[in-house]
Amino acid sequence: MQKNAPFTEITRTVDLSAETHGQRAKCIQRLIRLDMPVPHTVALSFETVHGIAAGQVIDTRPLLGSFGADSLVSVRPSPAMQEWGGPTAMLDVGMNDTMLLTLSETIGAEAARALYLRFVQAYAVEVARLDPELFEPTEPTRDALVQSLEIYEEEMDEPFPQDPANQLAAVLKSMARAWEGTSARLLRQAKGAPPDAGLGLVVQRMALGMGAAESGSGVIQFVSSETGLAQITGRYLSQSQGRDALARRAEALYLSRDSRGPSLEDACPEAFAELRAFGDVLRTGLREEMQIEFALDAGKLSVLDAVRVPRAPRAAVRIAVALAESGVISKEDAILRIEPRTLPELLHRQVAFDAQRDPIAKGMAASPGAATGQLVFSATAAQACAAQETPCILVRPETSPEDIRGMHAASGVLTEKGGMTSHAAVIARGLGKPCVVGTRDITLDLRAKTLTTRDGRVFAEGDTVTLDGTAGACLAGAPRLMEPALDGSFRTLMAWADQARDIGIRANADTPADAETARRFDAEGIGLCRTEHMFFDEDRLTVMHEMIFAETGEARGAALERLLPMQREDFVDLFEIMRGKPVCIRLFDPPLHEFLPTSREGIWNLAEALDLPVSTVTHRIEALSEYNPMLGMRGVRLGIAIPEIYEMQARAIFEATVDVSLKGAIVTPEIMLPLVSARREVELLKTNIDAVAAAVRNERGTRFGFRLGVMVETPRAALKAGEIAEITDFLSFGTNDLTQMTYGLSRDDAGRFMGTYVQQGVFAEDPFHTLDADGVGELLNIAAERGRAVKPDLTLSICGEHGGDPDSIDFCRKAGFSYVSCSPFRVPVARMAAAHLALTDAPVEKKPRRFNLLGRVLRSGS
Amino acid sequence: MQKNAPFTEITRTVDLSAETHGQRAKCIQRLIRLDMPVPHTVALSFETVHGIAAGQVIDTRPLLGSFGADSLVSVRPSPAMQEWGGPTAMLDVGMNDTMLLTLSETIGAEAARALYLRFVQAYAVEVARLDPELFEPTEPTRDALVQSLEIYEEEMDEPFPQDPANQLAAVLKSMARAWEGTSARLLRQAKGAPPDAGLGLVVQRMALGMGAAESGSGVIQFVSSETGLAQITGRYLSQSQGRDALARRAEALYLSRDSRGPSLEDACPEAFAELRAFGDVLRTGLREEMQIEFALDAGKLSVLDAVRVPRAPRAAVRIAVALAESGVISKEDAILRIEPRTLPELLHRQVAFDAQRDPIAKGMAASPGAATGQLVFSATAAQACAAQETPCILVRPETSPEDIRGMHAASGVLTEKGGMTSHAAVIARGLGKPCVVGTRDITLDLRAKTLTTRDGRVFAEGDTVTLDGTAGACLAGAPRLMEPALDGSFRTLMAWADQARDIGIRANADTPADAETARRFDAEGIGLCRTEHMFFDEDRLTVMHEMIFAETGEARGAALERLLPMQREDFVDLFEIMRGKPVCIRLFDPPLHEFLPTSREGIWNLAEALDLPVSTVTHRIEALSEYNPMLGMRGVRLGIAIPEIYEMQARAIFEATVDVSLKGAIVTPEIMLPLVSARREVELLKTNIDAVAAAVRNERGTRFGFRLGVMVETPRAALKAGEIAEITDFLSFGTNDLTQMTYGLSRDDAGRFMGTYVQQGVFAEDPFHTLDADGVGELLNIAAERGRAVKPDLTLSICGEHGGDPDSIDFCRKAGFSYVSCSPFRVPVARMAAAHLALTDAPVEKKPRRFNLLGRVLRSGS
Repeated sequence: MQKNAPFTEITRTVDLSAETHGQRAKCIQRLIRLDMPVPHTVALSFETVHGIAAGQVIDTRPLLGSFGADSLVSVRPSPAMQEWGGPTAMLDVGMNDTMLLTLSETIGAEAARALYLRFVQAYAVEVARLDPELFEPTEPTRDALVQSLEIYEEEMDEPFPQDPANQLAAVLKSMARAWEGTSARLLRQAKGAPPDAGLGLVVQRMALGMGAAESGSGVIQFVSSETGLAQITGRYLSQSQGRDALARRAEALYLSRDSRGPSLEDACPEAFAELRAFGDVLRTGLREEMQIEFALDAGKLSVLDAVRVPRAPRAAVRIAVALAESGVISKEDAILRIEPRTLPELLHRQVAFDAQRDPIAKGMAASPGAATGQLVFSATAAQACAAQETPCILVRPETSPEDIRGMHAASGVLTEKGGMTSHAAVIARGLGKPCVVGTRDITLDLRAKTLTTRDGRVFAEGDTVTLDGTAGACLAGAPRLMEPALDGSFRTLMAWADQARDIGIRANADTPADAETARRFDAEGIGLCRTEHMFFDEDRLTVMHEMIFAETGEARGAALERLLPMQREDFVDLFEIMRGKPVCIRLFDPPLHEFLPTSREGIWNLAEALDLPVSTVTHRIEALSEYNPMLGMRGVRLGIAIPEIYEMQARAIFEATVDVSLKGAIVTPEIMLPLVSARREVELLKTNIDAVAAAVRNERGTRFGFRLGVMVETPRAALKAGEIAEITDFLSFGTNDLTQMTYGLSRDDAGRFMGTYVQQGVFAEDPFHTLDADGVGELLNIAAERGRAVKPDLTLSICGEHGGDPDSIDFCRKAGFSYVSCSPFRVPVARMAAAHLALTDAPVEKKPRRFNLLGRVLRSGS
Repeated sequence: MQKNAPFTEITRTVDLSAETHGQRAKCIQRLIRLDMPVPHTVALSFETVHGIAAGQVIDTRPLLGSFGADSLVSVRPSPAMQEWGGPTAMLDVGMNDTMLLTLSETIGAEAARALYLRFVQAYAVEVARLDPELFEPTEPTRDALVQSLEIYEEEMDEPFPQDPANQLAAVLKSMARAWEGTSARLLRQAKGAPPDAGLGLVVQRMALGMGAAESGSGVIQFVSSETGLAQITGRYLSQSQGRDALARRAEALYLSRDSRGPSLEDACPEAFAELRAFGDVLRTGLREEMQIEFALDAGKLSVLDAVRVPRAPRAAVRIAVALAESGVISKEDAILRIEPRTLPELLHRQVAFDAQRDPIAKGMAASPGAATGQLVFSATAAQACAAQETPCILVRPETSPEDIRGMHAASGVLTEKGGMTSHAAVIARGLGKPCVVGTRDITLDLRAKTLTTRDGRVFAEGDTVTLDGTAGACLAGAPRLMEPALDGSFRTLMAWADQARDIGIRANADTPADAETARRFDAEGIGLCRTEHMFFDEDRLTVMHEMIFAETGEARGAALERLLPMQREDFVDLFEIMRGKPVCIRLFDPPLHEFLPTSREGIWNLAEALDLPVSTVTHRIEALSEYNPMLGMRGVRLGIAIPEIYEMQARAIFEATVDVSLKGAIVTPEIMLPLVSARREVELLKTNIDAVAAAVRNERGTRFGFRLGVMVETPRAALKAGEIAEITDFLSFGTNDLTQMTYGLSRDDAGRFMGTYVQQGVFAEDPFHTLDADGVGELLNIAAERGRAVKPDLTLSICGEHGGDPDSIDFCRKAGFSYVSCSPFRVPVARMAAAHLALTDAPVEKKPRRFNLLGRVLRSGS
């Protein structure tokens, strides 16, 4: 056919593609090829429609001619991607006074009037752009029809158009123009369409669905959109057109006999059987679960259209796995059909699709999932609730380390301030609890313990609310929740993803609970265990205070002596849970003042506990305070100044290693030094740690190994990676801190302007969310290159928030890193994202250890 | 001569070098070559002396034989560098009972006894290592001599050695061993000696200086050690040896007739005339001002030794310039003889050499110079003193920006805490005021306004003290001070240095006073003008507060409108002072909260001034507070968030440019953007600034140019220097902040451990003092390379504390930077250091603009 033909009759063989005529046109051609009974259909290309929008006039007579005399037609949008939408479909084009008479003969006067009335109203609103209120739906009486035609004539100053060719030309022009409108363009761009995305149109002979014998229309699909399980779903409505059956659900029939009421299967068993067969054909032929739009004309079945079944993330997983298991698609296809970013919805409770939502606050969706509980306004209140096993939602202006125990106790966290990388957001994601931050539309009164919404509703402590961390909202009351979907399909798909990916995935886990989550999500080890969180428990905090306030080396030693067995038990737990998988332990990192109270009351309590004058305690706290704690006395600097702390930790790690090894597990702990900026720091601490290892080996009369590494967090450590690698086994990039230092930007303080910065395009992305490949990434590459130059088998990885971000994983893959480590609840996302990258990217140059597995998967695929 | 000969008679022609026999041996050979009457001298090489220390026995008889019978000899140390010291010289070796009789005949019994007694006592203490208290100096009676010999015999269980050969062997062994002792080694290493530095020894026939006719000894030099001016200085003492004339000053004669008492010139005019002639010969022959040790034996003059005249830095400058001006040395030599680091002593008042010192506190010498004033313990008290024109010394636990006005008012600053890069130290160096920090040995009571010393002395507000910032001490009372020495010699030398150097030197100057200093020290422009300091004046601070608390854009605009003329006047002043030299203005940088009070009282006052509730003020202050201000909302981030601030500043700069240009000066201001981390930041602000420039050009109907640049302070800006250079004219490295971010280390918080870190060798140097060439330096090189790749004529420089450090200047020279900028009082040091580097280094590869000048100087030199 000619390239410039204005329209194309869709046949089995005509040259047609989604890129030129849109996905709907292409899909209809596929239906025809699969021998579906599709009414005669003509496609208009993007080029044609664009021409029409630009004012080109096309002669619609030949087009209408192809449908034969006395035919009505529908016009439907056909963009390149179904989800980009498009203008409303127009049915019954060609209806006029003459056809009214003709159809009155064939389908009866009332049905014909109904068709005409429907068309006049749709045309008036969509094409002539008259006020919809002028055409309220009514019974299709003769008066109603006459009135509508009169209103049209009055408003438009001309009678309703009677020539079908003119009608069609106006419809095409209207739809073409609607597509080019600004708001439509912005809407589809938000869904990922390019600015110049084209629109095709599909003109189809109407299956009337009205008239004598069994006539009507319906929609059918063979799986549940919510769960993905096999289940015939949809409706059929006699004497109806298009998707009327769904719109007028109450009047419509169920489809299968085992439903809760009268069904198509009862009413029209042959048609129903035929539809089921069509479903099987489409599943195999189109390699997808389809939703079919059909019509019956005097008992004769037509398939008008078919689209992918819309589906919730959990349904998508089940559908993809079922298709692969039945051999319809390959495992690789199944993996690639699941967007990694949709997985968190499966891991957590969610507010159900159909639940009533009564939002009281909106903010950023900082950690996914949903939880219902009583409102509380302090960490203490949250802990009190937890003690009574009452679920609660903790609401704070913002959170600080002092709130951590309250966050553990709460089922969800809402903060007034902060962004995606605020303390609350990071901790909540780590805990896998729903979290909403930056809800500027509420007012908190912490004394009165109330939350006031923008429209003045007041919620008090104890009121029941539901936090929707997936949508970024807080809802009043307790809407229905869906449970997580960590079922067989999920596990199967993740196993396939693991076979495909070529980079390791570990989890950041500080507590046994974290570690349990990490193992549940099949992390390959712990990539970052932050030991300082272990000291915030009340009994340990007391000993920490004694250590900090020790006046003599002996007093400090005594305090550390008491911490030793507690730390050892922490590590025993972690090693046992991880069952021989690697555990990378970062030695104590934060400045000591983080463990000291800031409030007057806290200082008073501390003075009492330590039996010291308040002035002494205040003085010590002041002495430890810092201008820029991020850049202060922490990490290895503390480790060098007070070597006893790291020595205690190393001893705890080694003694735990021996204890767990005696029970039969193989444990090779990894010890990581934080905030290094010079090789000499590592040398000094390595000497101390080696000495502790030798002492423990000697005391316990046993052998064990361990690996020593550095957390690369300062730009200087990255630059000096060569020197550092000479004396270490691994480098793990702490990209949070490294980003802060490379940008000279504190994550805690960036919230104030990061939103504006990203909006104005100053930064393309929030660099705390997506690794800054240009700047921070270059430091990673420099470090990797220099490290490998002196030690080719150096283990390289990243840990921190970036670990779970697909773009960051892609960066690490390409840099040939061994693994990424992310928060436990991001592990499935990271596994899936890594699989996608391995399946879609060119193979990476430096071959990581899993490359062979990937090769096997690719060969076994279709 | 044989290499392994144990000793070498010094003659004109013998092969002898300071590297094998030491500087003294070499100098004596030079004296002989210049026909000085030097007694017969023999040199022992480093190798020989080292052998003796290791236990090798050498036969001293041939050595003594070379002196002839009945000779006494002296033994003096001869290390490779005079200033490394060495064991005490031994005189009169060879003295014994027989010589006592012989000498009694020639020089008289009493003189002979005196010689013998002196030798016995010196030998007993230095060689036999007996307790000095056993040999208190007495009159040389016969009894005293007998008693000393008896004590020796009693203590040593053997009689005093009579064989001169044994005496000499013991002396040599004792001196060789003393050199190898640990404390001696550490002492000389502290003066720059390598650990394996060798010791030579010089054995010389004694000029007795005792006996009949005019006999005695003395020391003479022809310039003042304190001022360097021509002035015959020294003493002569009859019947004395060695340096007795200096030790027993009261008994000794002056040298020249025009002195305050009886003189050698009167007593022995021929010898005096001969000595003056010797002085001229040595000055020309040795190209240096020498101090001569001489003796008279019955009127016959011997020159025993000569050393470089010891000299204060100001004397060194005058001597070097005088030598060069009289053609004795080249200008280049004169430059190279002045250590750049000694120059600050010339720029400031100093405590006089001979002043009585009563130290009450010791600390780090953070800023050189000396000042006397009343003790004050608060910035307010300092300002009160200044109002009455009473000099004062401000003493604080540490200083913060709130103390700046007090520091301006005080003559010197002492802080209990802090290190070389603390706030007090940095500001004081900038102001050129003496400052001592980290004086841990005092206790401050700010309420009682007292300072208590370690030994319990109490000083109160108002007491007079003197701060010695050069030595790092605070002295009680008012010792004599020397005025700065910015005289003709200094200016001449600096002009020579300017001709030699090949990198530009600018000054950091925030105020007209700074700029005056900068011009006085011939800075080539202002490399960094920090505009924020301009807003701390009381009247401006009030307007700043209004700006910060503005609720509307209009209110903010109104406040900025009031700041505009003040800023314009600031820049008019700077441009006028700098008379067309470039002025690089950094736009507003600090976080806004630095301008807000922290004390309860300050907040209350502010609330009153703004007529706002205290709670509102407190709330706003809290809202602006930051976790890590260094990494927060400052620099371009503020400039983008509140564009009106930079727009006001740009307008002030351009209007000042027009105003000053109208008076005939050529002004091309340089505008520098702080804390950039992405090119887009620069683009946004460049657009705004260009618009302001266009508006001012339009309003004033005149043309002017300006240059726009970026302060590279974040590692990311360094990495992205290529992109940034495309749209800027210059990059200036803010190495203070860049070091902080590269190390992840806040300068304000590093004081706590930097001392230990440098001591333990964790960091080779304090990176805030000497540029970290490895880490931070690599970022500078990367940025320079990338910047030049897109813009070959890009101006590159560093500003900040490192600018005045010779090692850092060396780095910048080698990297081909255009200039370094340092605090005004470091400018002379930097100019001199740059000249040294240009004269001693291989020419740098990339030729900076001054290279031709250098070539000219080198060709015109000797």
